[in-house]
Amino acid sequence: MVVGYNTYIDLLEDLIDEEQEVISTGMTKEVDRTQLAVEAAQDGKRVAMISSGDAGVYGMAGLVLEMVAENELDLSVEIIPGITAANAAASTLGAPLMHDYAVISLSDLLTPWEVIIDRLEKAAAGDFVIALYNPKSKQRTEQIKEARNIFLKHKAPDTPVGIVRSAKRGTEEMMITDLENMLNHEINMVTTVIIGNSETFTFADLMITPRGYEL
Amino acid sequence: MVVGYNTYIDLLEDLIDEEQEVISTGMTKEVDRTQLAVEAAQDGKRVAMISSGDAGVYGMAGLVLEMVAENELDLSVEIIPGITAANAAASTLGAPLMHDYAVISLSDLLTPWEVIIDRLEKAAAGDFVIALYNPKSKQRTEQIKEARNIFLKHKAPDTPVGIVRSAKRGTEEMMITDLENMLNHEINMVTTVIIGNSETFTFADLMITPRGYEL
Ligand SMILES: C[S@@+](CC[C@H](N)C(=O)[O-])C[C@H]1O[C@@H](n2cnc3c(N)ncnc32)[C@H](O)[C@@H]1O
Ligand SMILES: C[S@@+](CC[C@H](N)C(=O)[O-])C[C@H]1O[C@@H](n2cnc3c(N)ncnc32)[C@H](O)[C@@H]1O
Repeated sequence: MVVGYNTYIDLLEDLIDEEQEVISTGMTKEVDRTQLAVEAAQDGKRVAMISSGDAGVYGMAGLVLEMVAENELDLSVEIIPGITAANAAASTLGAPLMHDYAVISLSDLLTPWEVIIDRLEKAAAGDFVIALYNPKSKQRTEQIKEARNIFLKHKAPDTPVGIVRSAKRGTEEMMITDLENMLNHEINMVTTVIIGNSETFTFADLMITPRGYEL
Repeated sequence: MVVGYNTYIDLLEDLIDEEQEVISTGMTKEVDRTQLAVEAAQDGKRVAMISSGDAGVYGMAGLVLEMVAENELDLSVEIIPGITAANAAASTLGAPLMHDYAVISLSDLLTPWEVIIDRLEKAAAGDFVIALYNPKSKQRTEQIKEARNIFLKHKAPDTPVGIVRSAKRGTEEMMITDLENMLNHEINMVTTVIIGNSETFTFADLMITPRGYEL
């Protein structure tokens, strides 16, 4: 049995055969979807739960295991790692994650905004390269502006910023800009935004963070 | 032509055919290896440069692009993303990276130790989940102890810690412990250490960081 969010099930069409039971649900139905999957597994079915990128990064792996732990279930669960959006987007931009980096979600649906702000502050002050997930949606438009203001307290306005939409999905779009100008470009729900550290530079259409080797 | 560190070339044996030119070099020869690869590419060869995990995370992607940028070369380079050690190790441990996380290398060969210490402080103070790369080698044995001391200033001694050696290499070993006891376990050059945030918990042999959903 295959369980997943509609869009991902559509992407997998070619890999699913007719005999397989498929359950696809809407985007915000994560808990329902997990419950369905876990119950089917308890009934003895072999269930594949689909996530995009890496299931362990703001994905379904945690929810499945939380449900197993909460109910002390004796289910065997295998987490299959994937390439998370930060690394996929980075490969499109060049090599921006070559030094210490922080991955931060700007979604305050499940996390208090003060906690997120504090992490943005700490990551910027520590000169981390920063990958932002869930940077902006139709409803959430202010977080990315506040994040940028925080970065500007610690990072130069010409710090390179890479914006990648729909990385590796066949409709990928990318753009290299800087902190000063980043808000002039489209940022949506399938966008990962990568902000450089103090040594990140650009060349042609590449964003590169040096590791520190003498060339 | 295939260029890489000996160990990785050996791992790829089955994928390389007899007609392919293979150049393998020792571990610390990163710059030489890159020079060889870039020169061959300039001579018109199609060159594959091998990295473990994700080439863009403390890997060869940055060095290749730095060399291209420094010499303003007109070479087309494609970076193919991979699953970096943090995500591979996380999938073995359960789902420890389900919330904001920082990736930090403890190697002070190319980065001043004070910079690393500052990042460890900031990441711990910001309650990030933290993945440590290059935690310890035969020569570098003190960094992991200092890192632990820093974490203990901000995190409880019973904060879960996952240790994964040789993740996904067929000889994988894993261990879930805590900040108090982490130094009692083997940590070597092919180890990734993941330190939980304040909400990370363990169940059976799983390390789980909740995302915040109501179950
Ligand atoms: C709920 S998270 C899921 C992350 C996913 N599990 C992963 O590891 O990539 C959704 C966010 O991931 C990022 N994302 C996911 N797929 C992406 C893609 N193909 N291109 C760019 N960003 C993506 C976006 O920031 C999006 O808002
Ligand atoms: C120079 S970095 C290279 C990282 C690599 N490019 C990646 O993305 O995984 C080497 C460090 O990565 C981590 N590492 C690499 N392969 C690993 C594996 N199979 N299991 C656990 N840790 C690994 C270890 O911390 C090691 O010291």
